[in-house]
Amino acid sequence: MLNFQYCNPVNVVFGKGQIAKLAELVPADARVMMTYGGGSIKRNGVYEQVMAALAGRKVIEFGGIEPNPKYETCMKAVDICKSEGVDFLLSVGGGSTLDGTKFIAAAAKYTATEDPWDICLKGTPVTDEIPIGCVITLPATGSEMNGWSVVSRLSTDEKLSFWSQLSFPKFSILDPEVTMSLPERQVANGIVDTFVHVCEQYVTRPVNTPIQDRQAEGVLLTLIEEGPKALSDPKNYDVRANLMWAATVGLNGWLAKGVVEDWGTHAIGHEITAFTGTDHGKTLALVMPALWKYLRREKEAKLLQYADRVWGIRGDDKDAVIDAAIEKTVEFFKSVGCDASRSAYGVTDEVIEKIVLVFERRGTKITECAIGAHEICEILKLCAK
Amino acid sequence: MLNFQYCNPVNVVFGKGQIAKLAELVPADARVMMTYGGGSIKRNGVYEQVMAALAGRKVIEFGGIEPNPKYETCMKAVDICKSEGVDFLLSVGGGSTLDGTKFIAAAAKYTATEDPWDICLKGTPVTDEIPIGCVITLPATGSEMNGWSVVSRLSTDEKLSFWSQLSFPKFSILDPEVTMSLPERQVANGIVDTFVHVCEQYVTRPVNTPIQDRQAEGVLLTLIEEGPKALSDPKNYDVRANLMWAATVGLNGWLAKGVVEDWGTHAIGHEITAFTGTDHGKTLALVMPALWKYLRREKEAKLLQYADRVWGIRGDDKDAVIDAAIEKTVEFFKSVGCDASRSAYGVTDEVIEKIVLVFERRGTKITECAIGAHEICEILKLCAK
Repeated sequence: MLNFQYCNPVNVVFGKGQIAKLAELVPADARVMMTYGGGSIKRNGVYEQVMAALAGRKVIEFGGIEPNPKYETCMKAVDICKSEGVDFLLSVGGGSTLDGTKFIAAAAKYTATEDPWDICLKGTPVTDEIPIGCVITLPATGSEMNGWSVVSRLSTDEKLSFWSQLSFPKFSILDPEVTMSLPERQVANGIVDTFVHVCEQYVTRPVNTPIQDRQAEGVLLTLIEEGPKALSDPKNYDVRANLMWAATVGLNGWLAKGVVEDWGTHAIGHEITAFTGTDHGKTLALVMPALWKYLRREKEAKLLQYADRVWGIRGDDKDAVIDAAIEKTVEFFKSVGCDASRSAYGVTDEVIEKIVLVFERRGTKITECAIGAHEICEILKLCAK
Repeated sequence: MLNFQYCNPVNVVFGKGQIAKLAELVPADARVMMTYGGGSIKRNGVYEQVMAALAGRKVIEFGGIEPNPKYETCMKAVDICKSEGVDFLLSVGGGSTLDGTKFIAAAAKYTATEDPWDICLKGTPVTDEIPIGCVITLPATGSEMNGWSVVSRLSTDEKLSFWSQLSFPKFSILDPEVTMSLPERQVANGIVDTFVHVCEQYVTRPVNTPIQDRQAEGVLLTLIEEGPKALSDPKNYDVRANLMWAATVGLNGWLAKGVVEDWGTHAIGHEITAFTGTDHGKTLALVMPALWKYLRREKEAKLLQYADRVWGIRGDDKDAVIDAAIEKTVEFFKSVGCDASRSAYGVTDEVIEKIVLVFERRGTKITECAIGAHEICEILKLCAK
C-alpha cells in the first residue's frame, strides 16, 4: 500500500425527504446565493422543496450554470457575490453546477490582483472560499464529496481543474428520489462516468491493497446489477439509492487512497468533448476499452483480476481473458444506452489528428504508464469504429 | 437503504515514517499533553519518534492509561489539563489510550457543576473539547477515525460509552511499522475485534445495500487472508498495512451508513470482560458463533450471504450452510490464536447467572432483534464449552 493522507469533512445527508434539512443546515444568518443549471429543478419539484426549507430567508438566485461550467458564467456570479455580500453558496443541481459553484466560491475570495483563472491555470493555492452547501440531483461526478472542480474557459478553449481542501462542501444532501425524473441519457452517462471513475483508480498496477480493490469491485458489481434497472424501473427507490451512493463512493477518495491511479481515459475523453461536444460519459465509454487493449501488458495483473472478480472470466490464455472482459465491459455500456463508436460521436481521422496535436503541444505524458501523443493516437484508432 | 448522515473530518495520515509529520500537524503554539498507556511506546521507538518530531516544544506527559481506560485515571489528567492550561491532547498508543483521551478532552471542558461522568451515564451532550491528535499503535478499535469512546468507572463497576462529533481526532497517524513489535496476543485480539466489528454491521438484516455489503465482505476476506500472515511473518509491511487499514475501515462509519446494525455480541462480551477480565477480542470470539447459532432464523439471509461470499459455502440445506460458515469462522479465530471456550475464559455457570442478572436488572433489549435476558442466557450456554 502507498502512503496517503485523507481528510474528507463533508457532512453527507442521504435519503428520502432530506432536502427539508436545509432549514437547519444553512446558517440562519447567512446571505445565501442559490446556484443552479438549466432550470430542470423548477420542473421536477426540487426548487419548491428547497424554497420551502428556506422559507422566510432572502435567497439570491443564480441560474444558467452550463454542463461543463464556464468561467465566463461563473465570473458573473462572482460579481454578484461581491456586490451583495453573499456569504453562503447553495448549489442545487448536478456535478457541473457544483463544480461551477466551487469556482465561484474560490474566485469571490481571490484577493490577488491577478485573474482568478490562475487557480485553474497556474494552480494558485486557494486560501479562502465562501462556504458551500449542496443538493445534488444527478449522480455521476462525485463532486458532492470531494474538493475537485472542472471549469472551462470559452475565450481560451481551456478545460481545467483545481482541487482545494476548502472546496469540499460543508454539507451535501443526496435524495435518491430527485433522480427518478432524470432523462435516460443523463442516467446512462452517470452510470458510465461512475464506472470509469472506479476503473481509473482500480485497473492500474497492483500495490497490495485488498480492501481498496474489493471496494472498487463492489461498486462496479453494483453498477452492473443496478444500472440497467434504473432504466427499466426508473421509480425503484433502492436502485436509485444504490446508484447515487455508488457515484459518491466512486470519487470521494475511499477507493483512491493507497493505490496507483491512472486517469488516462479521462484525459483523452476530455479532448473528444472539446472537439466534438460529445457527452463526457460517452467519451469514456468509447476510450476506455481501446486504452485497455493498448495497455494490456502494463495493466495485465489488474485486468485479469477485474475479469475474474467482476465478470467471472478465468483461463490460461491471458489475452483471451482480457479481451473477453473488455467485450463484457462494452456490452455493459451498451446495456445502459452507451453504444459508443467513433462514427456516432464524430471522432473522425481529422478529429484524431487535432487531439494528437493538442497532446504533442502540451508535451506532458498521461496515465501512470506515462504515454504520449503517439500512444494516444494509437488508442484513438483502436476505438470502436 | 436506510437514510443516514455521515461527517467524518479526521485527517488520516497513513504510512511509513509519518510520525515525523507531527511537527506540522500539532499546532505550533499549543500547550500539549501527550497521553499514553503502559509504556510500550518507550520500548518500541515510538516515543523517540514523537519527541523528535516535537523537539523544542514543551510537552506534558501523562502515562498509565489502562486497557479499558478508567474514569479515575482520566480525571487525574483532567486536573493537570486545567492547572497547566493544556490546549492540545496527543494520544500515543492503542484504542484504549485514545478512548481515555477522548474522555479527558471532553471532561476538561465540562463546565456544568455536575460530574463529567454524566457524559457517559446520562448522555449529556459534549459542547466543547480540547482538540485531539493521535498516533495509533494497535489496530483494533477504529477509535482513530470515529467519535466513540468507551470508559470504565471502578467505583461503580460501570463500563459506558459516549459519542460526540467533537471527539473525532483532528488527525490520526497510522504507521504500520509501529505495529510490527506488538505481542501476538494483541495482534490476535485486534484481528478478531475488527472481524466482529464488521460482522455487527453486516450479519444483520438485509436492506438492499450492495456497496456496503461488498465493502464489509472485502474487509472480512482481507482479515482472513492477511491475519494469519501477521503472526507467521510479523515484519511484512503490506500485511501490517492492510490489517491497520482494515481496523480503521471496520469502524469509521463507511460500513454502517444505510444498513441495519446489531452490536449484540459486543453487549454480551463487555459483561464477560467485566466479570472475568477476559480480553475484549477473546470474548467476541466466544460469543459471536453462539449468537449466530441462536439467531440463525432472524439473521438467515445475511448468514447465507456471508457463507457464500466470504467462505464460498452454498447449498440447499440452509442450516447446514449456516453451521458450516459458523464453523469456518471459529476455525479462523483459532488460526490467529483465539481458541475461545467458556472453560478457558472462566465463563462458569455462576458467571452466566451473574451476567443474566445484569441484563435482567438493566431491562433493555439488545441486538436489532431486541432479545432480553432469557435469550442472552441461552446464547451464553451455546458458547463453546
